[in-house]
Amino acid sequence: MAHRDRRGGLRVMVSGMSQVLERAYAEALDAADPLAGFRDRFALDDAGLVYLNGNSLGALPRATLARLETVITQEWGTALARSWDHWTALPGRAGDLVGQLTGAAPGQVTVTDNTTVNLYKLACAALGARPGRTVIVTDRDNFPSDRYVLEGIAAQRGLELRMLDTDINAGLDPEQVRAAAGPDTALVSLSHVAYRSGALADMAAITEIAHQAGALMLWDLCHSVGAVPIELDACDVDLAVGCTYKYLNAGPGAPAFLYVAARHQEQLRQPVWGWFSQRDQFAMGPAYDPAAGIAKFTTGTPSIPGIAAVEEGARLLLEAGLAPMRAKSRQLTGYLTELGEAWLEPLGCTLATPRDGDRRGGHVTYAHPQASHLNERLAEAAIITDYRTPDRVRFGLSPLTTRFTDVWTAASVTRDLVKAGGSDG
Amino acid sequence: MAHRDRRGGLRVMVSGMSQVLERAYAEALDAADPLAGFRDRFALDDAGLVYLNGNSLGALPRATLARLETVITQEWGTALARSWDHWTALPGRAGDLVGQLTGAAPGQVTVTDNTTVNLYKLACAALGARPGRTVIVTDRDNFPSDRYVLEGIAAQRGLELRMLDTDINAGLDPEQVRAAAGPDTALVSLSHVAYRSGALADMAAITEIAHQAGALMLWDLCHSVGAVPIELDACDVDLAVGCTYKYLNAGPGAPAFLYVAARHQEQLRQPVWGWFSQRDQFAMGPAYDPAAGIAKFTTGTPSIPGIAAVEEGARLLLEAGLAPMRAKSRQLTGYLTELGEAWLEPLGCTLATPRDGDRRGGHVTYAHPQASHLNERLAEAAIITDYRTPDRVRFGLSPLTTRFTDVWTAASVTRDLVKAGGSDG
Repeated sequence: MAHRDRRGGLRVMVSGMSQVLERAYAEALDAADPLAGFRDRFALDDAGLVYLNGNSLGALPRATLARLETVITQEWGTALARSWDHWTALPGRAGDLVGQLTGAAPGQVTVTDNTTVNLYKLACAALGARPGRTVIVTDRDNFPSDRYVLEGIAAQRGLELRMLDTDINAGLDPEQVRAAAGPDTALVSLSHVAYRSGALADMAAITEIAHQAGALMLWDLCHSVGAVPIELDACDVDLAVGCTYKYLNAGPGAPAFLYVAARHQEQLRQPVWGWFSQRDQFAMGPAYDPAAGIAKFTTGTPSIPGIAAVEEGARLLLEAGLAPMRAKSRQLTGYLTELGEAWLEPLGCTLATPRDGDRRGGHVTYAHPQASHLNERLAEAAIITDYRTPDRVRFGLSPLTTRFTDVWTAASVTRDLVKAGGSDG
Repeated sequence: MAHRDRRGGLRVMVSGMSQVLERAYAEALDAADPLAGFRDRFALDDAGLVYLNGNSLGALPRATLARLETVITQEWGTALARSWDHWTALPGRAGDLVGQLTGAAPGQVTVTDNTTVNLYKLACAALGARPGRTVIVTDRDNFPSDRYVLEGIAAQRGLELRMLDTDINAGLDPEQVRAAAGPDTALVSLSHVAYRSGALADMAAITEIAHQAGALMLWDLCHSVGAVPIELDACDVDLAVGCTYKYLNAGPGAPAFLYVAARHQEQLRQPVWGWFSQRDQFAMGPAYDPAAGIAKFTTGTPSIPGIAAVEEGARLLLEAGLAPMRAKSRQLTGYLTELGEAWLEPLGCTLATPRDGDRRGGHVTYAHPQASHLNERLAEAAIITDYRTPDRVRFGLSPLTTRFTDVWTAASVTRDLVKAGGSDG
């Protein structure tokens, strides 16, 4: 009897479920994986490590290592300030590569600041474009920095921050957004993939609902870019931000990106009027005159090595291709939920991620009363996952670096630890 | 007859002015320079290059190269997200090193964002602490990003931005600040060393004047930190920001720093409420609860390689010592103005920097009608300076890397180019 995973669309035929649970099956999946070769493009030299935290900090691409060496020793060390002649083009150039990953035509994405600062700038810009409206809609399970930034803006301006009471396992229901957003709503700001559950929001539907209310839509792509194909232009999105150190693999604290749809660039104004957003920067004129285009949404001097790393990370993903990236990501999460159904759920682990592969991003989360302890035990076994409040372990499966055998190892060790934990946990 | 430069306090005795103009004199100054050895601590491998633009982008310290290799290959590449266990301490630790360079006791400086964003945050924080006051005082010759940020804040809040009409060669006169700042003034925001003229402001006097008006004082230290000893605590300064890619040598777009005096940290609130400024960051709680101390003034994920480079750059300056750093900086600028008096001023170059060495920072500026052209010709001769509007060439003299022979070469080539320019300029 042939077996095909009903969720992940696994391509390796086996004769029954018992074989799916064998390590040999994972090895066969790795052997059949068209993206398997990409793992060698990363400096992952510790063969014993199972790294399932690329959704927190992605691995180091070898091309980035080489590029950073050039940027640091040659462009900085030797050419020095003369390199600004070409460095000034970097934020927009890297932005256009990120645009290719997010379905944004050129000139709408730039790499600048961090996600928090970008959220602040774009949320303020959106409010400026909707004067008289007094409500910002977000959800209780949005990433903390998103909630805090919006809470701060609301407090400073006397606005209402309206919080959707989202199911933290199932993610956003577009109908909740419809119920919350109305003629008082200036901005709807949500995450495309939920940081805890991995639930994938319906970008097209929710954006349309926000627009029906006359609000602008601001998406946080931190947990989706590089794992899920994104269609910002096609979904008629107004604004978006995202980080680059997760699936984009640009390194710790690499600069974030922001998207402002071309149709809004002339009207919208961000609040931090810095010299990198000035029309004729080195005229150093007496008054602020914002640049045309996406540069208007930058601030001061950007991190050049950081942006170079964003370019390299984006190029690797584009080389892999968005469809193969998503296909493998779906396979990886589907394989983990399959193993989890057989091994973890019977032991009291609860799948805290949508079971339908179409409704999740690149990570899978299990809830367990001893999640924090379990996460530590996994680390001791050289399996790097992430603990998230209140009782969750996140398994981040990065399409370019995670092997099916990594998933098998993580699931089987988790099973053994949960079993053993019955006595000591 | 012994000759001593009346401004720079040169230590090499010569028998007359003609000898001061000889290259041998510069060589003797280099031989007597107690900081000469520090140049070898930098990756300045192009022996033919005279780099006088360290006040725009400082050189690459060899220790930084080694540190970045460790951060990138080991901490990121191998240890991956586990490195956050120690990375979280970096912003404050690097901040305390910068605090040692700026006369700030520990816990008052952190390394975060860029100068523009930090200016925005601290200016907003200051305004929040002075409700009802409607004026921000700055000066027309303040750095563009400073002026633009303050202009933006004033425009967004309906405040007045009151511009001092500063002499762009002589710099800030404290009495101008006294005349401008009054009971309507919330904030006085100025640069410690002027980006064009190099004029050094009287931090103690101006801060006291701002306080007499009941305003808070925010200093921009970009062009002074690492060239001029700074006494933030002793001068009773409230707030300060500064960049790290000039005399701190932390690389292109390395994160900036900010200072909030301990006495203000509890009261002041910055507007960008990010997760790195949350009291218990990984509790990821429902409401923003700002951290105690300087972390409250950070935003989102900081650049880890960038902060590591700030640490290395600060350490080098601290190893050199603040008094020797300033002594050499004074000598370098004094030597250049001496050569300029003999060679450049007679040819129509105007010294656009205070002639009194006590009133300038680490760079010297000359005005000349063909300044832009001259700057390009110098670059062709492998002498890297900087053009600034409307008619200025800046010579940045970095105490750890600039040789007296560099100054001699730059001055003599400038002289030759200006002479030759009489026919083609």
